Amino acid sequence: MRNKLRAAVVGATGVAGQQFLLALSGHPWFSVSVLAASERSAGKTYGDALGSTGWCSAESPPPEALPLCVQDASLLSETAGRDFDVVFSALESEAAKVIEPGLAQKVPVFSTASAYRYEPDVPILIPGVNPEHAPLLLVQKRRRGWNGFIAPGPNCTTTGLAICLRPLHDAFGLRRVIMTSLQAVSGAGRTPGVLALDIVDNVIPYIAKEEEKVEAETRKILGQYRGPGEAAAGSGEAGDSEGRIEPLAIGVSCTCTRVPVLDGHTETVYCATEKPAPLSAVRQALSSLGQSLQGLGLPSLPAQLISLREEPNRPQPRLDRETGRGMTTVVGRLRPETVLGEHGVKFVLLSHNTRMGAAGGAVLTAEWLLKLGYFG
Amino acid sequence: MRNKLRAAVVGATGVAGQQFLLALSGHPWFSVSVLAASERSAGKTYGDALGSTGWCSAESPPPEALPLCVQDASLLSETAGRDFDVVFSALESEAAKVIEPGLAQKVPVFSTASAYRYEPDVPILIPGVNPEHAPLLLVQKRRRGWNGFIAPGPNCTTTGLAICLRPLHDAFGLRRVIMTSLQAVSGAGRTPGVLALDIVDNVIPYIAKEEEKVEAETRKILGQYRGPGEAAAGSGEAGDSEGRIEPLAIGVSCTCTRVPVLDGHTETVYCATEKPAPLSAVRQALSSLGQSLQGLGLPSLPAQLISLREEPNRPQPRLDRETGRGMTTVVGRLRPETVLGEHGVKFVLLSHNTRMGAAGGAVLTAEWLLKLGYFG
Amino acid sequence: MRNKLRAAVVGATGVAGQQFLLALSGHPWFSVSVLAASERSAGKTYGDALGSTGWCSAESPPPEALPLCVQDASLLSETAGRDFDVVFSALESEAAKVIEPGLAQKVPVFSTASAYRYEPDVPILIPGVNPEHAPLLLVQKRRRGWNGFIAPGPNCTTTGLAICLRPLHDAFGLRRVIMTSLQAVSGAGRTPGVLALDIVDNVIPYIAKEEEKVEAETRKILGQYRGPGEAAAGSGEAGDSEGRIEPLAIGVSCTCTRVPVLDGHTETVYCATEKPAPLSAVRQALSSLGQSLQGLGLPSLPAQLISLREEPNRPQPRLDRETGRGMTTVVGRLRPETVLGEHGVKFVLLSHNTRMGAAGGAVLTAEWLLKLGYFG
Amino acid sequence: MRNKLRAAVVGATGVAGQQFLLALSGHPWFSVSVLAASERSAGKTYGDALGSTGWCSAESPPPEALPLCVQDASLLSETAGRDFDVVFSALESEAAKVIEPGLAQKVPVFSTASAYRYEPDVPILIPGVNPEHAPLLLVQKRRRGWNGFIAPGPNCTTTGLAICLRPLHDAFGLRRVIMTSLQAVSGAGRTPGVLALDIVDNVIPYIAKEEEKVEAETRKILGQYRGPGEAAAGSGEAGDSEGRIEPLAIGVSCTCTRVPVLDGHTETVYCATEKPAPLSAVRQALSSLGQSLQGLGLPSLPAQLISLREEPNRPQPRLDRETGRGMTTVVGRLRPETVLGEHGVKFVLLSHNTRMGAAGGAVLTAEWLLKLGYFG
Repeated sequence: MRNKLRAAVVGATGVAGQQFLLALSGHPWFSVSVLAASERSAGKTYGDALGSTGWCSAESPPPEALPLCVQDASLLSETAGRDFDVVFSALESEAAKVIEPGLAQKVPVFSTASAYRYEPDVPILIPGVNPEHAPLLLVQKRRRGWNGFIAPGPNCTTTGLAICLRPLHDAFGLRRVIMTSLQAVSGAGRTPGVLALDIVDNVIPYIAKEEEKVEAETRKILGQYRGPGEAAAGSGEAGDSEGRIEPLAIGVSCTCTRVPVLDGHTETVYCATEKPAPLSAVRQALSSLGQSLQGLGLPSLPAQLISLREEPNRPQPRLDRETGRGMTTVVGRLRPETVLGEHGVKFVLLSHNTRMGAAGGAVLTAEWLLKLGYFG
Repeated sequence: MRNKLRAAVVGATGVAGQQFLLALSGHPWFSVSVLAASERSAGKTYGDALGSTGWCSAESPPPEALPLCVQDASLLSETAGRDFDVVFSALESEAAKVIEPGLAQKVPVFSTASAYRYEPDVPILIPGVNPEHAPLLLVQKRRRGWNGFIAPGPNCTTTGLAICLRPLHDAFGLRRVIMTSLQAVSGAGRTPGVLALDIVDNVIPYIAKEEEKVEAETRKILGQYRGPGEAAAGSGEAGDSEGRIEPLAIGVSCTCTRVPVLDGHTETVYCATEKPAPLSAVRQALSSLGQSLQGLGLPSLPAQLISLREEPNRPQPRLDRETGRGMTTVVGRLRPETVLGEHGVKFVLLSHNTRMGAAGGAVLTAEWLLKLGYFG
Repeated sequence: MRNKLRAAVVGATGVAGQQFLLALSGHPWFSVSVLAASERSAGKTYGDALGSTGWCSAESPPPEALPLCVQDASLLSETAGRDFDVVFSALESEAAKVIEPGLAQKVPVFSTASAYRYEPDVPILIPGVNPEHAPLLLVQKRRRGWNGFIAPGPNCTTTGLAICLRPLHDAFGLRRVIMTSLQAVSGAGRTPGVLALDIVDNVIPYIAKEEEKVEAETRKILGQYRGPGEAAAGSGEAGDSEGRIEPLAIGVSCTCTRVPVLDGHTETVYCATEKPAPLSAVRQALSSLGQSLQGLGLPSLPAQLISLREEPNRPQPRLDRETGRGMTTVVGRLRPETVLGEHGVKFVLLSHNTRMGAAGGAVLTAEWLLKLGYFG
Repeated sequence: MRNKLRAAVVGATGVAGQQFLLALSGHPWFSVSVLAASERSAGKTYGDALGSTGWCSAESPPPEALPLCVQDASLLSETAGRDFDVVFSALESEAAKVIEPGLAQKVPVFSTASAYRYEPDVPILIPGVNPEHAPLLLVQKRRRGWNGFIAPGPNCTTTGLAICLRPLHDAFGLRRVIMTSLQAVSGAGRTPGVLALDIVDNVIPYIAKEEEKVEAETRKILGQYRGPGEAAAGSGEAGDSEGRIEPLAIGVSCTCTRVPVLDGHTETVYCATEKPAPLSAVRQALSSLGQSLQGLGLPSLPAQLISLREEPNRPQPRLDRETGRGMTTVVGRLRPETVLGEHGVKFVLLSHNTRMGAAGGAVLTAEWLLKLGYFG
């Protein structure tokens, strides 16, 4: 393949930024050449900015990152395109709102921040799930006059849910979804993070804004893309000149809770479907997701996007979160669901919130868009 | 009041049995005079049977229990009625199946075991929730020729759910219920119990037979009692000569999980209702449950059967499980539910699984039935 | 008794401040009339300053505190003596350094901060342990020209250790002490506190500055007080005109670790003694500590300062930390120690770090000094 | 190298047995050809014996093991030597006492059981630590008339301690050692194991018989081997005709505790030494352990037997236990120790209790003895 693209990791000192470094370590297509963070860390080497206690993964930091000089994220747009070809952003949402557009003017930006997820010209992409939304990036570039684009990934709790719902919707037609999440503490990062004082021997049945995000993002990811000028089928309306995503018009009702688990979000999901959904067909649908990607040679793509477990007591976060190096959604406890609607299925899913649900998913999306020619 | 009734605690050495001792310690109506357990402990003092490591609550064992000689539970029916007037049974289900009938021949038996919950002449009573089911105990006595009766409490996961659904059904008419539980480890007791190896940093998304129990028990507790000869309204059928409970004909769909919490089951509940259920009316309905009991002077009755929390992040097991000394179900996160049906409400409840959900609930039921004259 | 003294709680919104409110709730001698915190909270009611999620104990906040208007701690000295008679300070050390002297000019200040612990005219008092150090407060007042004084309590890890070492030193003469602590997360408070991400399924074998504090404070608390002009016995030197505490000249070697426990510091202690220390005599010595206090009627004094457990597997933080409402140090696993020296004893102690080890201990000290007439 | 040796894993269904399967999976010298367990599992395939919930590691069971038919361990000696060439035993101590000798009559037995550790003709071997004890196996064979031998590894808590003390003793001469352990729950296995009910939010300051084991085993491992007829230097006595290990005559004093950690034993260690032990020399000594092994090509040997961490807050079990695939002991917090004796050092060590501390260590010992020609 071509020479490696030079990547900048922005927000590099936080938990999500560290995950980007791990996801990109030894990557065959991208090499991390620039690290940026807040002004406080700027000018220090990455090793010094972390200090002796700032790295928070059992995997060691990539040694080649330690001597890099951390740059001030707010000034990074000046060197975009010249010093780096692509950005992986782990910024907090407020900072992302301000900083990411300047970077996207010049290079593609893959972000774990929520800042731009709900803009009409921004798709929330998951490879294998909504490839038909990718062309909206071209609309975004044209409309905003950018050379690059912003491609945010979904909220970590949305990721596993959308991955499982896609094949179910395609096969059986979703009517309604109810979901309760049992989320890991790493999803809250370190600032402020979840205090041990608050979660040991406890459940916190609330995560601010999470339920709204999951409900809106799920409908958007499963929605239908109308290209510029393309009318909704049978609508008689003129198409939108800009192109847009029409959210899937189904109800999604969530309760998001925090539990004393380090990594891996567990979700109990109840789906009502239009058509009968016998378990054998459900298994077939879930197992087949993402097969079209398998030939592309994407380095971060796991062998399966969804892995089914037949044991009655799986998936479990501690035992199953590393499946496919954290890139596989693990599903178990498949049972018919007949209370939520005439037909349907219920199940439990597990998705690694800092891998496929954050940095790993963003890197996979970058690989996929690069392969599709979106890097221009 | 009268002299205290002499109580036998059966299965006294296990977690649930210890909870009975705590619930009965200093009780104004019952005094523990007999302790029974398996043959292995029989003949030892209770203190010796526990050994130095067998007591598992932060509250100390009642000192008056320590010198009592533990009796063999399988032989206890011989002295029922002579040495004790009422039984609190914390037996495992298999043992309960064999031992409880012999005791019920002579005295009332209040049990945390599931063995008899699903028999047609056995109500699953919760004071304040289904008082109209109590007369089925008279049918049971007559039909089985017993002087006493078996009154089992619900499964600990059913308890909080049924308590919350009762007033909602009365006020708005339930159509469908979906529930996900996050259950504490104390619910599994000590034999075998939940190993730390299995639950630290983990969720186990399965508890054997739990979902079936919760679904069946909830429908039964909310069901309609037909007394002997009483026909279902408008059915045109002859009544059942024996009396029976017609389960509520609604769908209840559950996923039961285990989380690293010591005590207190958290449940996320989604209800569809027949009528609109504005949150103010929901609050009113939930808060009012059990008011008719308040005048009876039941020693274990808490000030409120249901307590509402308005903070967004409550109830939490560690902070809220001791509300009303563990006898109050705490409800929070009330929100409209419009995905499951046209009208409805969703919320999070917390119920103390070893207090109201087990020994405490059984003692409260005993107090209530004693007051109603059922011991006679 | 007299009218209640009006107390100000400074640093009232943090974990330690909340513990002061609990320790003072319903207190017969002190009534909380003033709350102060940082500028950020000033001007709000205490309830508003906490917000819906800022209270962090399972016990509810005292209702009478909620409507109090929080004052700016840095301005509080202006009203000292006029609006309140005594201060309980839960300030961070840096803030304490600045704020406490202004308050002590007018009223007694009882503090959990370390800021003044190591000053030569400041004793670190524990009732029952080093009453002979109390007169140093008079030296402090005179020397500094204050009406009040600063009386800091020890570090929460020192507390239990000093309590156990005092009677052992008196009875057998300490020569050397080695201690490893297993500390609870509540000791780190909420800012920054210990993240769940860092401590679930983990031990952190380091707490910044803790070991130095414990070693120095233990020697000081067990040290000998020389009043003004009083020479060290046999030293031939002139006495110190100011009075001072001569630290106990023994080696104390510590390793302080953090474990996934909410409340209650466990410490494994190895002592070498001058004289033989048979276990029966050790039991006798430990059990007798603080008997002279029992007649004073101090409201926060527990029935025993030290409680001995004979079971092989006690003390355990979850089971034993509430002993004496968290004011009793629980000791178990007494065994002869012959490796550290010719004679000695080893044991495990448990001390509640936010009760006796912080707010509760400070309130007890205030009660004791009030009774002794130190409030002037 | 030669054809692979056929290995039997005895006690294959328990936690330690599963660890043997993982440690031997893909092993270049040994292939697992026989699995044995209690009568209850005998006759089933290994997959069926585990059932759907019996495997307890996040790593999957080696697929080639699942179809093997589990044999009855008590009958295994009949086929020893014919069907397998070496035994890895994870039996409980009582079963090991009975079963291991029959196997050792024919083949070498590497065991995690304590049954034979304290016999005079049985060394407790750790490669790189006490190679001079290996010849005692020849004495054992001759004396007992066995073709094979029993080579038990140390208790999992002894392992890391002995590994660190060996180079310190060689370099500085140990005089006294004090150790407090914070042990993981996996050390207790599954039967009975540690209940979540007992350890969540808790410390248990006692593990039955553990302290005695650690103290005795440490002295034995560090002891001096006298070959047959070899007298103690300068003793003037005749040598022991059988050969024996003279335990190191130093005091070792321990307190063993259980903490809520899944894997990895943390130990705080205080050493007094004969000679000065400057930290630079201590680092040098610790880092050099086991260098003589590096040329042998032992498949399970990690790059370093001891790894030093200079960060103040390491080692931590969750972050460091997988160092060297769990075969490296990680040491940090090196500080001078001057309380326990004139010279000395204190530190914190971390050792993976189910890898180097159990199955992994036993496999490494087998590799080493095979290389040395002990398999005869």
